Amino acid sequence: MIPKLQVALDNTSTAEALASLRQYVDMIDVIEVGTILHVAEGVSPVRILRALYPEKIILADIKGADAGSILAKQCYDAGATWMTAICSADVETMRGMKEEAQNYEDSKDVQIELYGDWTFELAQQWLDAGLKQVVYHRSRDAEASGKGWSSEDVEKVKKLSEMGFKVTITGGLKIEDLKLFKSIDIYCVIAGRSIRDASNPLQAAQNFKDEIKRLWS
Amino acid sequence: MIPKLQVALDNTSTAEALASLRQYVDMIDVIEVGTILHVAEGVSPVRILRALYPEKIILADIKGADAGSILAKQCYDAGATWMTAICSADVETMRGMKEEAQNYEDSKDVQIELYGDWTFELAQQWLDAGLKQVVYHRSRDAEASGKGWSSEDVEKVKKLSEMGFKVTITGGLKIEDLKLFKSIDIYCVIAGRSIRDASNPLQAAQNFKDEIKRLWS
Repeated sequence: MIPKLQVALDNTSTAEALASLRQYVDMIDVIEVGTILHVAEGVSPVRILRALYPEKIILADIKGADAGSILAKQCYDAGATWMTAICSADVETMRGMKEEAQNYEDSKDVQIELYGDWTFELAQQWLDAGLKQVVYHRSRDAEASGKGWSSEDVEKVKKLSEMGFKVTITGGLKIEDLKLFKSIDIYCVIAGRSIRDASNPLQAAQNFKDEIKRLWS
Repeated sequence: MIPKLQVALDNTSTAEALASLRQYVDMIDVIEVGTILHVAEGVSPVRILRALYPEKIILADIKGADAGSILAKQCYDAGATWMTAICSADVETMRGMKEEAQNYEDSKDVQIELYGDWTFELAQQWLDAGLKQVVYHRSRDAEASGKGWSSEDVEKVKKLSEMGFKVTITGGLKIEDLKLFKSIDIYCVIAGRSIRDASNPLQAAQNFKDEIKRLWS
C-alpha cells in the first residue's frame, strides 16, 4: 500500500495551524495536532479540525504516559481518529487507550511513539496487547544536535514492519530521506516543517505525495 | 528537609480543579496541573492558577518528549515554576527545557517523570546534563491492575536520592504508604485522589501534612 502523508501542526495556536493547513489539506491524508499545539490549547484544536474536515484522519499527538482510558476518551470525544502513547507508558495504559477506542463506531486507534531506549521485546508485548501502530521518531532535538537518519534507523523501521506493525516515520523528514525506506512497507510518513515552512506549502505537499507514489507504487 | 506536599489536579476542567483546590490550597506547597487537565485545556489552567496563587510553586505536568525549549517556553511563559519531561525523551530535549528555564528570573526547573524501563546509567546522564529533579511513579494503570508499592520501588527511590536527585514520589500514594520512604531524603510527595476525592479534602491534606512532619522531622 502507498504510505499515507501526514502533516504535523506544531503551531502554537489553532488559528496559525489553520492558516497553514488550508493551503495543502486536500493533498494530505492525516492531520496531526502536534504536542506543541496541544500544550497551547488542549484538545480544542482537534474539535475544530473535526468540524472543518469531517472526512480526514485526525491524530491527537498527546504522547500519553498514564491514565490511558481517560486521555483516550478526551481525544476521541473531541473527534480524534488516532491518539499517541509514549513508549515508556505501562502496557496497561496503552491497553486502556485501545479498549476505549472500541467504544466508538468509527475506527479509532492508538499509536506508540518510539523515543529513547525501547526494546523489541517490549514491542512484542505491545503487539500481544493488540497495539498495532508505532511511530518511529528521530527526535527533533537529536536532529538539531546534528544526528541524521542512519542505517540503524532504517533497520529498526524494517524490523518493526516485519513484526507486523503499521509503522509511521517522522523527525525532520525531507523528501530526499524517503528513499532510505523504499524497500519497507511504511504505513504513514509525517512531514512538518518541510511542508509548513515551505515558501509554497501546497507545492511542497505535492512533491512529497509524488515522491511517495514514485517510491512505493 | 521536610518533603513538600503537592496535589495533582487531574480534573477535566479548570473550573472543577479550582473548586477542589480552594478547599486545601493553603495546606499544600505545590499545585500540579495534571496531564489530564493539560489535555483538556492546554496551558491555560497554569495561567489562571498563577494569577490566583502568585506565591505557589506550580507544576505543569506535560511530560514533554521532544521540542524541549519550545514546550518549556510555553509552560514558563504561562507561569509554571516547574515542568515535566518524560524519561524516554532525548537528553538534548531535557537540556533544552533546562536552558530555557535559565531565561527567567525566578527559579524555574524541570522534573523527569520515570515511567517504564529507564536505567540508572541514563539517570546519571541526566545528572551530568544538569537535571536534578525526578518523579518516581507508580503508574496509575499499573496501580489499577493491582501492583502495589514494593521494596524494589523503595530501593530505587533511595538510590536516586543518594545519586543526588531531588526525588518526588507519586502514584496512588496513601498516607499509610509514606512510612515506606521514611529513611529517604524525599523532596516532594504528590497526592491526588486521596485528597481531591476525600469527603473532607482540607482534613485529608492536613493529615498528609501531619504525617509528613511526623516521619521526616
